[in-house]
Amino acid sequence: MDKKIILREEDMPRFWYNILPDLPTPIKPPLNPETKKPLTAEDLKIFPKAIIEQEMSNQREIPIPEKVREIYSLWRPTPLIRALNLERALNTPAKIYFKNESVSPAGSHKPNTAVAQAYYNKMEGVKTLTTETGAGQWGSALALAGSLLGINVRVYMVKVSYEQKPFRKSMIHLWGAEIYPSPSDKTEIGRKILKENPNNPGSLGLAISEAIEDAVTHENTKYALGSVLNHVLLHQTVIGLEAKKQFELIGDYPDVIFAPCGGGSNLGGIALPFMRDKINGKDVRIVAVEPASCPTLTKGIFTYDYADVAKMTPLLYMYTLGHNFMPPSIHAGGLRYHGDSPILSQLRKDGLLDAVAYNQTEVFEAGMLFAKTEGIIPAPETCHAIKAVIDEALRAKEEGKEKTILFCFSGHGHFDMASYDLYLSGKMKDYEYPEEKVKEALEYLPKI
Amino acid sequence: MDKKIILREEDMPRFWYNILPDLPTPIKPPLNPETKKPLTAEDLKIFPKAIIEQEMSNQREIPIPEKVREIYSLWRPTPLIRALNLERALNTPAKIYFKNESVSPAGSHKPNTAVAQAYYNKMEGVKTLTTETGAGQWGSALALAGSLLGINVRVYMVKVSYEQKPFRKSMIHLWGAEIYPSPSDKTEIGRKILKENPNNPGSLGLAISEAIEDAVTHENTKYALGSVLNHVLLHQTVIGLEAKKQFELIGDYPDVIFAPCGGGSNLGGIALPFMRDKINGKDVRIVAVEPASCPTLTKGIFTYDYADVAKMTPLLYMYTLGHNFMPPSIHAGGLRYHGDSPILSQLRKDGLLDAVAYNQTEVFEAGMLFAKTEGIIPAPETCHAIKAVIDEALRAKEEGKEKTILFCFSGHGHFDMASYDLYLSGKMKDYEYPEEKVKEALEYLPKI
Repeated sequence: MDKKIILREEDMPRFWYNILPDLPTPIKPPLNPETKKPLTAEDLKIFPKAIIEQEMSNQREIPIPEKVREIYSLWRPTPLIRALNLERALNTPAKIYFKNESVSPAGSHKPNTAVAQAYYNKMEGVKTLTTETGAGQWGSALALAGSLLGINVRVYMVKVSYEQKPFRKSMIHLWGAEIYPSPSDKTEIGRKILKENPNNPGSLGLAISEAIEDAVTHENTKYALGSVLNHVLLHQTVIGLEAKKQFELIGDYPDVIFAPCGGGSNLGGIALPFMRDKINGKDVRIVAVEPASCPTLTKGIFTYDYADVAKMTPLLYMYTLGHNFMPPSIHAGGLRYHGDSPILSQLRKDGLLDAVAYNQTEVFEAGMLFAKTEGIIPAPETCHAIKAVIDEALRAKEEGKEKTILFCFSGHGHFDMASYDLYLSGKMKDYEYPEEKVKEALEYLPKI
Repeated sequence: MDKKIILREEDMPRFWYNILPDLPTPIKPPLNPETKKPLTAEDLKIFPKAIIEQEMSNQREIPIPEKVREIYSLWRPTPLIRALNLERALNTPAKIYFKNESVSPAGSHKPNTAVAQAYYNKMEGVKTLTTETGAGQWGSALALAGSLLGINVRVYMVKVSYEQKPFRKSMIHLWGAEIYPSPSDKTEIGRKILKENPNNPGSLGLAISEAIEDAVTHENTKYALGSVLNHVLLHQTVIGLEAKKQFELIGDYPDVIFAPCGGGSNLGGIALPFMRDKINGKDVRIVAVEPASCPTLTKGIFTYDYADVAKMTPLLYMYTLGHNFMPPSIHAGGLRYHGDSPILSQLRKDGLLDAVAYNQTEVFEAGMLFAKTEGIIPAPETCHAIKAVIDEALRAKEEGKEKTILFCFSGHGHFDMASYDLYLSGKMKDYEYPEEKVKEALEYLPKI
């Protein structure tokens, strides 16, 4: 039996899948943060026109431009791999497959949308893209895309990550992009926050504010977001569309799909093409895996909230822990965003998407078992999915069921070794986000 | 046109290619370091029997054990990729292909032999393998193999690298292996060197001495070497055998092949199957690319020398800069070994193998261009081949020739970002190894 299911380049999808027209409950429209009225295209001018159209499109299939497919072919189609060694180690009757998105040059699924976004901006004459990054996967993906498409990139990286992961910075420099720790002195909001507390460790919500301010205050400069929004999930569906073809090749179909979930881009990417089948009656379970320290889908509130700290972004109707959420600094495992994709949030609300949360030590333990059996070192984010997969495979063993499990191997951990060191030293601590804090966050939520 | 030429798993080679019976001039036998007589099997008892047989075999095709093929399938067959973006950037009529060995979990070609060696040791009941590592690629590959095959691994890492590359250490720990900076206090030779100079930065030759001493002084413990020896090149031929099949698929054949060369394992791996054709009259140029600061094949002497500092190893007939060679500490580009594979040395002597040397700044400049056009960040070692490829492609442009160029993309640079930082900071310096030093080294050479 082949360990890897490989597609030919010509089998790479020619369309992305847009789930908006298929959603059982339509998502609520984003609101202008001042007027609290549904957004106009004018409100979205930090994005190029093509992206704004995609964000609101009701077209089910959206063509992938030839240039984007050409760049995808640097690493796509990605392999679907059977984790036979992990199955043996667990002595499970379950079949475990993973879609390996770590093979991209930036080491994660993020370039799938970075390349598309850089392409549309380039087509509309944009010279510079600004963005934020947390752990660094998104920032490096956009830097890569900028390098391949000839567009400048300016990255605001959450300060605590910037300091913990110096080599993400090097990678971004190597691809010719600029990078600044956030809060920075490059923006009004950054300077304000620094004045209040020069040691502010930063957050994703704050870095978003800085990147947006940079975009709106500079000529020919637009902003790019790496998760949460509809067009981002749209571009990522290339993952799930390929995976479906790969399962067709082997005559199988997943019973359950897991993916790590922060803002929702890799989960949406792998799951939405299968979600289409589920909406049409197919029996497949789809599960978001998140950290217990940032449990947006498992403990958050489904409501309108800002996507950033400075309240510059539109209000999104989503699960949220409150836009003031600051992840605990002991958390090394990524996925620290306070909100979640409106599409995934609605699917969660409608009972089509399950969610589980895990503590980081058990998550790293799972990642270690994967690395020791399958070889590849997973990113901390990816370890979350692996933990859930292992639990599912052990349940299948107890129940004596031959389940087919699929998960998104969203990225490798080559730039996260300091987190593994922390785990290996035995000094990693868990932190479970308390229910009370969620209630506190309610006070800060916008009143609609 | 497809960018990637992909083989199916069933097309992965079932045999390694052993060039020994095809060499126009046989290599001179290794000698016992004390008696100066050709080695007996007894002298090689730091290796398992199967490896000793392979080291001296005259069988042209040696079967790859099923278990080894199964582990290879975690990442093999590796893709052959057309570097179209690099071609465009150079505006060259040359076609540039690279065999991407960076896709292994350890990030380089090294696991091809690490897995085979761990397998044969395991089969003979060995519990622990010791080894040395310079930049860390070999040590992490053996740690990976040990983890996948259930065998302990103890790594001695050249101290200067150990300190410069902390995350290689983490990677080795993650796969469950032990690692010590060399010189260490774990061995006689290590303690002796530390006593003379506690700040000794270490060298590959010294780390080899420590690993061998560890193996001979412990029960059930053998030694594994990651380059230079015949069996290592043998296992690596899986690279070139796959590449030949891939060129058959597209109806092409390389005019010239480049690979970085330290001890010779990736060069031997990609080139020997093509060298077989060359020996039989095929017109193909094969070129070793080495650093100007460690120019073994371009400036070294072809003679008997030790493979290590402590003179514990057999004498090998090879190109050498002298076993006392210490690479300058300003050298960040890998490939720091004083000697070279006896097989490749003999082919070089016979005029079948060309060699060029480059300075490290031009090598990193080439690697940057590759990363910016093709996306993937090359290891410093790999950058050497890329520099030579770029020069060849530019010559092809001047001459208006449509050459087919192949090179071995031996590894990625995810654990070498500090070296890129040094280059990007403008502080990287070149150092050309002076002819006089080669003459000095003659004094230390063993008299046969």
